[in-house]
Amino acid sequence: MGKSRLEAFSDGVIAIIITIMVLELRAPHGADVGTLAPLLPAFLSYVLSFVYVGIYWNNHHHLLHALEHGVSGAILWANLHLLFWLSLFPVTTAWMGENEFAPMPSAVYGFVLLMAAIAYWLLERAIIAADGPSSVLRRAVGKDWKGKLSPLFYVAAIVSTFWWRWVAEAIYVLVALLWLIPDRRIERALNHRATHS
Amino acid sequence: MGKSRLEAFSDGVIAIIITIMVLELRAPHGADVGTLAPLLPAFLSYVLSFVYVGIYWNNHHHLLHALEHGVSGAILWANLHLLFWLSLFPVTTAWMGENEFAPMPSAVYGFVLLMAAIAYWLLERAIIAADGPSSVLRRAVGKDWKGKLSPLFYVAAIVSTFWWRWVAEAIYVLVALLWLIPDRRIERALNHRATHS
Amino acid sequence: MGKSRLEAFSDGVIAIIITIMVLELRAPHGADVGTLAPLLPAFLSYVLSFVYVGIYWNNHHHLLHALEHGVSGAILWANLHLLFWLSLFPVTTAWMGENEFAPMPSAVYGFVLLMAAIAYWLLERAIIAADGPSSVLRRAVGKDWKGKLSPLFYVAAIVSTFWWRWVAEAIYVLVALLWLIPDRRIERALNHRATHS
Amino acid sequence: MGKSRLEAFSDGVIAIIITIMVLELRAPHGADVGTLAPLLPAFLSYVLSFVYVGIYWNNHHHLLHALEHGVSGAILWANLHLLFWLSLFPVTTAWMGENEFAPMPSAVYGFVLLMAAIAYWLLERAIIAADGPSSVLRRAVGKDWKGKLSPLFYVAAIVSTFWWRWVAEAIYVLVALLWLIPDRRIERALNHRATHS
Repeated sequence: MGKSRLEAFSDGVIAIIITIMVLELRAPHGADVGTLAPLLPAFLSYVLSFVYVGIYWNNHHHLLHALEHGVSGAILWANLHLLFWLSLFPVTTAWMGENEFAPMPSAVYGFVLLMAAIAYWLLERAIIAADGPSSVLRRAVGKDWKGKLSPLFYVAAIVSTFWWRWVAEAIYVLVALLWLIPDRRIERALNHRATHS
Repeated sequence: MGKSRLEAFSDGVIAIIITIMVLELRAPHGADVGTLAPLLPAFLSYVLSFVYVGIYWNNHHHLLHALEHGVSGAILWANLHLLFWLSLFPVTTAWMGENEFAPMPSAVYGFVLLMAAIAYWLLERAIIAADGPSSVLRRAVGKDWKGKLSPLFYVAAIVSTFWWRWVAEAIYVLVALLWLIPDRRIERALNHRATHS
Repeated sequence: MGKSRLEAFSDGVIAIIITIMVLELRAPHGADVGTLAPLLPAFLSYVLSFVYVGIYWNNHHHLLHALEHGVSGAILWANLHLLFWLSLFPVTTAWMGENEFAPMPSAVYGFVLLMAAIAYWLLERAIIAADGPSSVLRRAVGKDWKGKLSPLFYVAAIVSTFWWRWVAEAIYVLVALLWLIPDRRIERALNHRATHS
Repeated sequence: MGKSRLEAFSDGVIAIIITIMVLELRAPHGADVGTLAPLLPAFLSYVLSFVYVGIYWNNHHHLLHALEHGVSGAILWANLHLLFWLSLFPVTTAWMGENEFAPMPSAVYGFVLLMAAIAYWLLERAIIAADGPSSVLRRAVGKDWKGKLSPLFYVAAIVSTFWWRWVAEAIYVLVALLWLIPDRRIERALNHRATHS
């Protein structure tokens, strides 16, 4: 199987995931402005998940772009495994939004984020294994501090849901921002700090 | 990331948006012709939104077609930002249709149209910035009177929903028609008037 | 806009239409075999519409394949117009199935089939107009007896729903079969008959 | 019609099927951990069907990859026939999950698996017929013991649903595992056994 097929299929699934999430934002039954207020948590959790899926779509391409050899069975199933966890975003997003960021739905939301991060890491390993010691991805990944930090953040968020309710949400937003801000500026800032301290 | 990937993903999301809107047109419960009548407002708002999404799909291509350089991070996220507002069309269309064009849903519908227009403009800016001073799009956009007028029309429509209920709907239809009618004829007409007045 | 974009977008929309129709086949609430029986009309109307969308997908390709020049604005909107009527298949299929082929839903189902056939004919005209007198499609269409007969059949079916309930359904099945059976055999049969009579 | 169109359309439909299955996993109404428990059967049947659709997607490509000549009408409709049965996965998955693997929904689930396997076999035949005696697929298929065993397993599972409830589920899982485990190892193991017995 060629790489372009895998990309096209993954693009299709991700495009559908990002779009069906909005089906959980149901039109309110009344026509007053007051009927919009209860939709706010659902809207906010939709925005958060939209950004996460956008980040995964973006990173997924860089990952497959780095793949130099053909698609092995391991890569194919590691990819489907990642798509599986991404496919759970709409339902956990809806559950968290409808319950106004209650502890249990927020923890389950974080758990699915965590599993998607692990699935992404497994796909990264499968590609590096397929490309062998000269893998371009292996070198790039050495600096992947975001990929290493994110799962720790998710675990912290899951644990915190039961004590400090909004800490978990703050962590989810923080991790999304970490990925949104272009790397170069952050790295330059980090380098700058390292040189001057 | 190549331009063709961005196009394919955007095409996928827009194809899904235009199709899931129809899921809000639920089959009536009875089997008489009378059960169709309450569906009429939902049907009309579906037609309006279908035309708008069609226009955005069409214009989105011309925009990306004009892009000469690679896809920057700014373009990627400006594009996702546009898709975000387009993804809200199904829910606002359903809300407006189910409430028979009541003021608040019509205003929210106009607000999403306005935000999509702004997101489109931001994407235009991101592409011009990436292509630099020699950008083809920069020159083309100089004449973009529709792009400049549309947001003003949307604001007027949003304001008018609370006083003259049907003016807002008339404006939404008018702006859609403005974009539907091929440019050349309008420009020729405008030129003709300009020359003879 | 290139022809391949138009094909890819149309393919996406048609793939979604054919798949969301199945969302109207809701899982029954009980777990007995008896709970399946009420689903039978919905299942049959799903099968019928699946075949129709398959036929449209197939014919749509032949149509665009025949297009020799670029995609004009008229072709683009004629294509969106066809997709619009196809997008109404899921809701009319569900309405007809849930009401066990009652007259009014069956007539509306036929009306949408009729409008799709007219939209297909308009797209054909737009392509012939774009390609000019030497159009490949113009010559091919000369023999298009199916395209000319189908709308008449649909009108007959719509009228018949109110007198002979099952005649309409029989006509819908007949027209689908007409398109399913490969042309060559039919034409050979018709030629054979013409020669011997 | 080119092979790539058929692949792209099938990819689109399969991507949508695999993603809309998750729409049947509805967010629970409460926010306690206890509200998740009733979702477990639905979740497990989703996992099972996700794996099956993944397997079909994977095998479908190998099948079309083997096709050397153009897409005949028979291949086109054999392919749509396969997509038809795959499109019923979401509804049978939901029915089985919501009824906690009750006999009748499990039998119907197995019936759809069986029909998909038969449709796959028919598509295989159509491709071999199109490619003629020198068909690459004909030779590859000679060893297709999985393809020949699977329908027998499904029939056994359907029959067993009414006597030993969990045997059917165990068979569905077993067949999925058979397809998941890479062929080479199994064949090596079988060869090894054959040599030593």
